[in-house]
Amino acid sequence: MAIIAIDAMGGDHGFHSTVPGALDALKKYSDLKLILVGNASLIRKKLQQLKAEDHPRLEILNATEVVEMDESPSSALRHKKDSSMRVAINLVKEGRANACVSSGNTGALMATSRFVLKTLPGIDRPAIIYGMPGIDPKTGERALSHMLDLGANVDCTAEHLFQFALMGSIRTTFVDHIQKPRVALLNIGEEEMKGLDVIKAVAQRLAACPEINYIGFIEGNDIFWNKADVIVCDGFVGNISLKTMEGTAKLISFVVKNAFSRSLFSKFLAILAYPVLRQIKSKMDPRYYNGASFLGLKGIVIKSHGGADALAFSMAISVALEEIAQDIPGRIHDQVEQILGLKDEG
Amino acid sequence: MAIIAIDAMGGDHGFHSTVPGALDALKKYSDLKLILVGNASLIRKKLQQLKAEDHPRLEILNATEVVEMDESPSSALRHKKDSSMRVAINLVKEGRANACVSSGNTGALMATSRFVLKTLPGIDRPAIIYGMPGIDPKTGERALSHMLDLGANVDCTAEHLFQFALMGSIRTTFVDHIQKPRVALLNIGEEEMKGLDVIKAVAQRLAACPEINYIGFIEGNDIFWNKADVIVCDGFVGNISLKTMEGTAKLISFVVKNAFSRSLFSKFLAILAYPVLRQIKSKMDPRYYNGASFLGLKGIVIKSHGGADALAFSMAISVALEEIAQDIPGRIHDQVEQILGLKDEG
Repeated sequence: MAIIAIDAMGGDHGFHSTVPGALDALKKYSDLKLILVGNASLIRKKLQQLKAEDHPRLEILNATEVVEMDESPSSALRHKKDSSMRVAINLVKEGRANACVSSGNTGALMATSRFVLKTLPGIDRPAIIYGMPGIDPKTGERALSHMLDLGANVDCTAEHLFQFALMGSIRTTFVDHIQKPRVALLNIGEEEMKGLDVIKAVAQRLAACPEINYIGFIEGNDIFWNKADVIVCDGFVGNISLKTMEGTAKLISFVVKNAFSRSLFSKFLAILAYPVLRQIKSKMDPRYYNGASFLGLKGIVIKSHGGADALAFSMAISVALEEIAQDIPGRIHDQVEQILGLKDEG
Repeated sequence: MAIIAIDAMGGDHGFHSTVPGALDALKKYSDLKLILVGNASLIRKKLQQLKAEDHPRLEILNATEVVEMDESPSSALRHKKDSSMRVAINLVKEGRANACVSSGNTGALMATSRFVLKTLPGIDRPAIIYGMPGIDPKTGERALSHMLDLGANVDCTAEHLFQFALMGSIRTTFVDHIQKPRVALLNIGEEEMKGLDVIKAVAQRLAACPEINYIGFIEGNDIFWNKADVIVCDGFVGNISLKTMEGTAKLISFVVKNAFSRSLFSKFLAILAYPVLRQIKSKMDPRYYNGASFLGLKGIVIKSHGGADALAFSMAISVALEEIAQDIPGRIHDQVEQILGLKDEG
């Protein structure tokens, strides 16, 4: 039985989406128990509304505070010791939960997770990893490229990036069942502009590491075509790239919706084309890809998108379950120790 | 009469797209003269094919070499002194052309432009600026956000970024006729992660500069919603963002095409929906947005996309014409001198 602590108050919609999302996950997974952390009376009311107040695998744990979405990480850390976020992470620390899932403020979640759980030995900084949805151009099938870091570390040394590559490779091996995942560094295309000494340095290190299947550089337009399983970059670049992807997809969706609602004929077409449009939407729907993982901590913390609805939130719970099943922090701990150990002997 | 030197051999399709693109532009603009630089016999053959060998406003200038798309900038600079690219840029330097347009290798084009034309006084490094297509969410109308640098400079100081902001603001004022364009810095959202000391430093400098209408930070997902007229970032981040945009748009287009060609019914729908799909395509078609400008040089150089076809190439020529009409290098020269001059007095 896996136990997951839910920050029930986090995100733009708080318990309105975390509670139904939690119930969805309980329906899907029979070996799952959830602890909903937050304002107990509000959570209970919501459960009553959804006719699920007596779910046998659901527990409520009261927390009196909420970390605001725009609150600074240091303020959350200092002043919100009884927040739903903090209490949920504490449960992981105390071994009462195997993972924590939150749609809350990313900065606060990272700072609190790091403060409470600490990083694994040999890992200087945790990183945010997320499976970018793409397509294999040969098969037309969905393919994920796991990108990290997506915003936890703006200034990275070659050593940090090397650790990200290592952690990303280990996680992808076990969670996605890919032997020797292809690891690439995000870079820009112009040969001699391939500047950034730090990227050159980490490229050399990755090429010399037998435990990592390093395949070289990848450009921003190649993220989506199954060219690499793990894409490594610093958190500044990764966050800009992720947000650009989000913005572009929204822009196109806006233009398409606009075009199909412009006239009576186009509205009629939209109805007629509904099955096709739905199929497109289901393939691109970011809700199905929700759930970024904080790698490098002594515990599992999954960040759900702030705007996640119930469906999206339940997907983030699935990600947590996969990490629990594979004991990702344990795997990273063992392999990092082994690789760094081997390095000391060499 | 504006005279533009065309690197006729550059790009993935070379003279097959530059020559018809040049003819398109000549049709559109009666006060334009073009000099096609490259393998004269190949160019002449192509013109004959297109029944345009005697165009009165078209000149051919032979160049014996071609810079390869994957050639290193330094190799192009050292070994390709009679390349179509180099000779076209030389024409600008010698005052025989008012601008140069090339679909060639970006790194080589930037290195050669910088070497031949030199940067304007007060400008340390040229930058690549490009109008990212977006939408005004209120009106549903197209809106451009001009982003720089997109790949010329991977490592930037606050001073470099400040100069980019200044150049971008000046260009947007005159080319897009926007009084006091809104200038933003590309950054990531988490308050305390807003790291990068260099961005903090340039933010302070921009806020203190009365000639720049600095509006603060912008995130990657807000590039497309008419929130800023000029978006400033270093070339590494800018290139990754631009390429991510390109990749995401291609991914969505792939999924849409796939969905509409899956069954007889969906193919029938695609035919029925053709006017709507065409309208969507025309709004998003990157060919209409082709043409990035190298700002900060003593001359106008426009980079067309490497894969540009004739239509896209003619759009890049239009961008060159706008810069010529507004004398962008002259404007930057004057205003930078004035602002830096004022600064010295203060």
